[in-house]
Order: sequence, then C-alpha cells, then structure tokens
Amino acid sequence: MSPAKSVRLALLGCGIVGSEVVRLLHEQRDDLTARIGAPLEIAGIAVRRPGRERGDLPVDPSLFTTDALGLVKRDDVDVVIEVVGGIEPARTWLTEALRAGKSVVTANKALLAEDGGALHDAAADGGADLYYEASVAGAIPLLRPLRESLHGDRVTAVTGIVNGTTNFILSSMASTGAGFNEALEEATELGYAEADPTADVEGFDAAAKAAILASLAFHTRVTAADVFREGMTGVTAGDMASAKEMGCTIKLLCIAQRTTDAVSVRVHPAMIPLTHPLASVGDAFNAVFVETEAAGPLMFYGRGAGGRPTASAVLGDIVAAARNRLTGARAPSESNYAELTVRPIGESLTRYHISLDVAEKPGVLATVAGVFAHHEVSIATVRQSGREDDAKLVIVTHSAPDAALAATVEALSRLDIVRSIASVLRVEGGAG
Amino acid sequence: MSPAKSVRLALLGCGIVGSEVVRLLHEQRDDLTARIGAPLEIAGIAVRRPGRERGDLPVDPSLFTTDALGLVKRDDVDVVIEVVGGIEPARTWLTEALRAGKSVVTANKALLAEDGGALHDAAADGGADLYYEASVAGAIPLLRPLRESLHGDRVTAVTGIVNGTTNFILSSMASTGAGFNEALEEATELGYAEADPTADVEGFDAAAKAAILASLAFHTRVTAADVFREGMTGVTAGDMASAKEMGCTIKLLCIAQRTTDAVSVRVHPAMIPLTHPLASVGDAFNAVFVETEAAGPLMFYGRGAGGRPTASAVLGDIVAAARNRLTGARAPSESNYAELTVRPIGESLTRYHISLDVAEKPGVLATVAGVFAHHEVSIATVRQSGREDDAKLVIVTHSAPDAALAATVEALSRLDIVRSIASVLRVEGGAG
Repeated sequence: MSPAKSVRLALLGCGIVGSEVVRLLHEQRDDLTARIGAPLEIAGIAVRRPGRERGDLPVDPSLFTTDALGLVKRDDVDVVIEVVGGIEPARTWLTEALRAGKSVVTANKALLAEDGGALHDAAADGGADLYYEASVAGAIPLLRPLRESLHGDRVTAVTGIVNGTTNFILSSMASTGAGFNEALEEATELGYAEADPTADVEGFDAAAKAAILASLAFHTRVTAADVFREGMTGVTAGDMASAKEMGCTIKLLCIAQRTTDAVSVRVHPAMIPLTHPLASVGDAFNAVFVETEAAGPLMFYGRGAGGRPTASAVLGDIVAAARNRLTGARAPSESNYAELTVRPIGESLTRYHISLDVAEKPGVLATVAGVFAHHEVSIATVRQSGREDDAKLVIVTHSAPDAALAATVEALSRLDIVRSIASVLRVEGGAG
Repeated sequence: MSPAKSVRLALLGCGIVGSEVVRLLHEQRDDLTARIGAPLEIAGIAVRRPGRERGDLPVDPSLFTTDALGLVKRDDVDVVIEVVGGIEPARTWLTEALRAGKSVVTANKALLAEDGGALHDAAADGGADLYYEASVAGAIPLLRPLRESLHGDRVTAVTGIVNGTTNFILSSMASTGAGFNEALEEATELGYAEADPTADVEGFDAAAKAAILASLAFHTRVTAADVFREGMTGVTAGDMASAKEMGCTIKLLCIAQRTTDAVSVRVHPAMIPLTHPLASVGDAFNAVFVETEAAGPLMFYGRGAGGRPTASAVLGDIVAAARNRLTGARAPSESNYAELTVRPIGESLTRYHISLDVAEKPGVLATVAGVFAHHEVSIATVRQSGREDDAKLVIVTHSAPDAALAATVEALSRLDIVRSIASVLRVEGGAG
C-alpha cells in the first residue's frame, strides 16, 4: 500500500463514546488504513478538562484542547466528529465545520431532530458530508440502508424499539411481573438507566429518533416538535398482565407511518402480539421494523447504546467520510422533496385496548357499546368477566382517529355505570 | 426540479425479477427522479424471445432485443442491470460492460461466488461501479452495511439463513413433525421449491451466498469452491424431535467465521437453541446474524426471494449507481487486502450432536467415552436412556476440529456395542 496523505480528524468530546472512538482508531489502525487507502490521524480533541486523567487512552495528551471552535476551523482538519450531544454549542461547531467544507460525523440525535434541516443546508452550502448513523439505534446499520438501500422502494411504515433503557424496563416487567418503579430501580442499579431517567422513560429520546427516522423514510423534514410523545411511566403490572392474557406484550414504540400524502409520527407504549418480530426483542436491545411496498417487512436488530457499539457506528461513518475526501465523492444529500404533511395525533389512525371496571347490571354492555358507536369507533373484540359486584369489560377497537378514541374514553369516564377506567393502551402490529 | 439528462439503463433478462424491475421503474418514476436528480430511462431489454406476450408490462415493445452484448456496448447505455443468472453468458456481458466503464447492478450470486474477483478487477479497469445487493438475502439491505457501515469494525462471524426454500421446509418439519419429503412436497405445491430443488436442498445456493458474505466480511476473496457444503436432505423427523428435546431447532446455516489469520466458511444443517434470534425466523424468510468486535451482535431480517423484494434491492443499487454517474462518485471498490487463508472444514472448529443406539450392558458409556478421549474430543453432555434391549446415548461435544469429530463418529460406528448411529448433527449458536 503506497503511503497516502492522511485524513485528519477533529474529535469533539471524549466521554464514553469518544474514548471508544479513540481506542478503535488505535486498535484497528492498519485495517482502517487498508480500507480507506490512507491513514486516519487525530488532529485534536476538544474537551472541557484537558488535564483530566484518562487512564490508558492511547492518544498524545498534547492533542487535547478546550477550544472546540478553533479546532473545527483549523485548515488541517478534514473530518469533524461530534460526540458531545445537546443543541448548543454543538450546533454552532457543526454548522461552522460544514460551511467550511469539513465533513461531519455526529451521534447527536437531539440536534438532528431539532434542527437537522439547518445542518443539511450547511452541508449543501459547504459541499461537505453529513453522516449520523450513531444517532439512532447505536450500532445497528439502519440509517445508511434507509438513506441509500431503500431508495428504489417506498417505505410505508417504520416501527421501532429505539430506547434501550425503556426496553430493559418493559422486558423486565413482562418477565418478572414487577411494576414500573421496581423495574426502573433494577435498570438503574445495572447501569441501564441514568440517575435522571426522564429523557428515556418519558419518550423524549425515542421521539428525537422517530423524527430522524421519519425524515429519512419519507423524504420529508420532520422535527422532534412534530412527534406525538407519550412516556411509559404509566404502564402498570396490571397492564402487562392484561397484555399477556391477550397474547401480547407492551413495548415503547416509535412509529412513523405514511398515507398517500401525509405522515404520522409518534412515540407511545403499545400492546403488540407476541408473534410480532419486535415482541422478542429483549433486554436493552433495539430493533427497527421497516415495511415497504416492494421489499416487504424488514427488521434490523442490535445494540442501541453503549460506548463501543456506538463508536462502531461512528467509525463506519468516519471511513465513509474519509473515502469521500480521497475520491471526491459525496454522501447522499438531504432528500426532502416529498414534503408530506405531518398529521397531528388526533387524526392518526390508532387502535385502543380499554379495560373498564363496571357495575354488574343488565344493559351495561349496550350502554358502553353505544358510546363507541356515537363516536364512530368500531369495536373489534369485547371480553366481559363478572364476579358479583366486580365486573370488568375489556374492549379492543378497530382503528379509528386517535381523537375519536380519546373522546370515547373521556365519555366512558363520565358514565355512572363505569366505576373506573383501569387502563387504556394503544394497540399495534395486528394485535387483538 | 430542473430536467437533467437521463441515466440510461440496459436490462439483461426480463423474467420474474426483471419484470418487477420494469414495473417499479414505472410506478416510482417521479420519486426516483426526485431522489436521483435525473430521470431513469430504459435504453433496451435483452431477452431470448422478444416477441413473447408480456401482459401489461409498462414498456415500449421496441426496446426488446436478443443482442445482449450489442446492447451492453451501446454508447448511450450508462448502467447495465443483469437478472439472467448463471455463469455464461452473463460473465462475458458484465465484463464487457465494466471494462467499457458502464456501472453494473447484478443479482447473480453464482457468478459472483465463482468469479467475483474478475468482475471487481474489470470494474477497477473500467472505473465503473459493481453493485450486487440482490445477490444475497433478496430484499434485505445486507451487503451495503457489510461493505460500508461496518468498515470501522471487525466482523468475527456471519451466520445466516439465506435460503428461503430450505427454511420453509425446516420450519414446516419443526412445526408439524413432517419428514423431509412431505415438507418438500408442500413447499413445491406452494411455489417455495422449484421442480428441481437440488440447488436449494443440497446447499449450493447457500454456499454461493456464503462465499459472497465471507468475502465482504473478511476483506478476502472467497469463492464457492472454498465453501464446505452439506445439504439438508438427510435431516429427519427424528432429528427434529431430538433437537426439540434439547430446546433447539434445526436450520440450514451459512457460517463464516474468522480467527486471527484464517476464515472458515461452510453451509450445513445445524441445531441452534430456540433462544437464538435465528431460531424464530420462520417460513421462507431469511435472516443474517453478524457478530463484530465493537458493535456486538446484529441481525438483518426480511424476504430473501421473490420478484418484487429482489427488484427492490436491484432498484436501490440502480439509484446508487445512477447518483454516482451524475456526481462522478464511485462505489467502494473491492476490499480484499486481508488475504486470509480459508481453512478446510477438517480444521474448522465445530460441535457435534451424536445420537447412538447401543447395547444395554455395563461399560458401554465407558467404552464410548474412551473413543471420544482417544480423538481428543471433549464431551459437553451425555444423556442415556435405556429401555430393556433398546438403549440410547445422546452426546453433545465441546468444539473440536471437524476432522477429529468425523473420525470419532467413524470409530464409534465400528464398535460392536454401537448398533447404529441414529443421527449426527453439527451444533451452533451456543446450544447444548
């Protein structure tokens, strides 16, 4: 192999993912050089505390700097890798980098979901590459297939388990019968949940990923603000038990669906049948189920988080960006020509599983069914179980606008004969 | 959108896959133009019988020709799409096309497995792209992730269900208890098996795909001749029953493994635990399980065959090749720098599940265990079940060189106390 000019990297951030990127660059040095046709070289690493002890990190300490913006602007930097996260100052750094024609590899889902369009614009202005495989579903090669492999097909739906923390919690609730708090505690002890788990359990993390997936799948700019979001803290051991009775389990899903001229993008817990490929995705694993017109159903499965898995995705993007620098090629630019409308959740078609505690007297089912009919919601199945003074109705609907379903639940709650609404869950994947 | 010069396609073959390519090009015309930045146009279609009735195929009949080589060489052709299959004349056509600088998209697994290196060389000579996503696992975006996404990581193993026909047969045997012949008959009736199923059931099809996967995963030229191949016609209802007893099922697997300086590539039926992600891949679906050093386990799942799914993969490659024509970019070239040795099956480390009918008398286990010890094969588990004159020993080994395992079986068959060897199956995926 003839020694070619090296491709020089600026690394922004050196935490869990950044350190693993440095280690992999070191460990796989020879392979990477052979695959790219030139060596990769770290030009600098921007961190908050350059003097911090970094154990056995195989890197020259003089490369650390606190001046991220200065590093990004240096003439000898070809590719900027951002693993800091958050909106600012990452947005400023990456916008500057792209406008200056430097390729960007980022794992920053929050920034892409909030302002990915602006980053793509900056990339187009600067003639630079923007890669972000690590931003969704960690190590799973998912965005490249969506961005490239499926461009000869029409994606109709993307349904994913894209948050490892909540999947660990729900898998644990399903297997042990534990409640949410108990399962969260276990997840925290095992390092699967952060001290403040809000971003995970309230679905913010999954909503950002849903926006990124929907944008790629439907060739339409979708931001986090477009995504309906409902967390999974309200899922109870009782909900999980009724899911089981129906041959289902409960997962926190990100769902992006396409109709002819609109898309629906949402994150919420949902019952799915145990026979659905996503049902058996356990522990902290991620998986994304993609439906297309021609290819049919596809699934991508793997680790969604963790330093090394995420670093693997970052490295794959670095190799692509470096090859492009050497050959003059370019990453596919943003594809947003379809400009589909994002439908609000109220207009999205969903299905509900509703469990009611009702009075045990004649005519209850007729009254309840009347409320569904009044809201033009069609019932798929009803199960009635009565024990003296404690009767229960479990109803699964056909699909209907979410607003009609919500209004039905609201009206049911006002009925005298309904003592309480034990649970309301959306149903996906053909369950019920 | 400003009308750009069209990208002109030559289609070689217009059977099941080719017709679907034509239909998708027609149906998704506007989307494809928007995604590529220029329209795609069919310059000609080479077929054996141009006059044949082709129903409602949305294409100008004057485009049909019998002169494939002439079509390939035409100056106005940019991308050549080959969906004929077989070694010749496809090899001649594609070599001519690539040398003339025309990009090639092919689904031809047999040709790639036999002579992929020569095609890659021709692509390098002509400065042309060679794409072949549809050659393995049909619609599943798998080769692009291996060729690009995982290039910052080191793949240690690829284990796949890559033949839909045999997976349908084995899934049916597992669920109904049917024998091979009965399940094959059902598969033939339902159109999952061809009239002559040899290529599928004897593992030739899977072996070609194994060679392609191993080449990409390990950056080493691997041909079909390097792949150890054992078909699945010998799998009996009894084997499937003993697999079940062990909490396993039987799948026809393609396996490519890497050690430090060598690779092992093989196709054979094997027992895998029901808890393995590949175990639940049913019907005619395909799935490929990829293990890497940094990303950990990944799985890709979807339809492995069928006109439309395969055409989806072909279209994705056409879009990539067309974009490259417009931007002057190039597909990743062949990566074969690692030049690892392909280890013969005898040296490959495997595990065996051996079921013996033995005489019911004292010392049988000691004698049998002695044979294993003599061949330096370590036993993981033994189950002994005796009924008067009909005793059975079921032995699962630890991993050992396949030659030592085969020699052990051979020696066991010569023992007087062994009445018959009821079954021998390899074991994968941590079963046993």
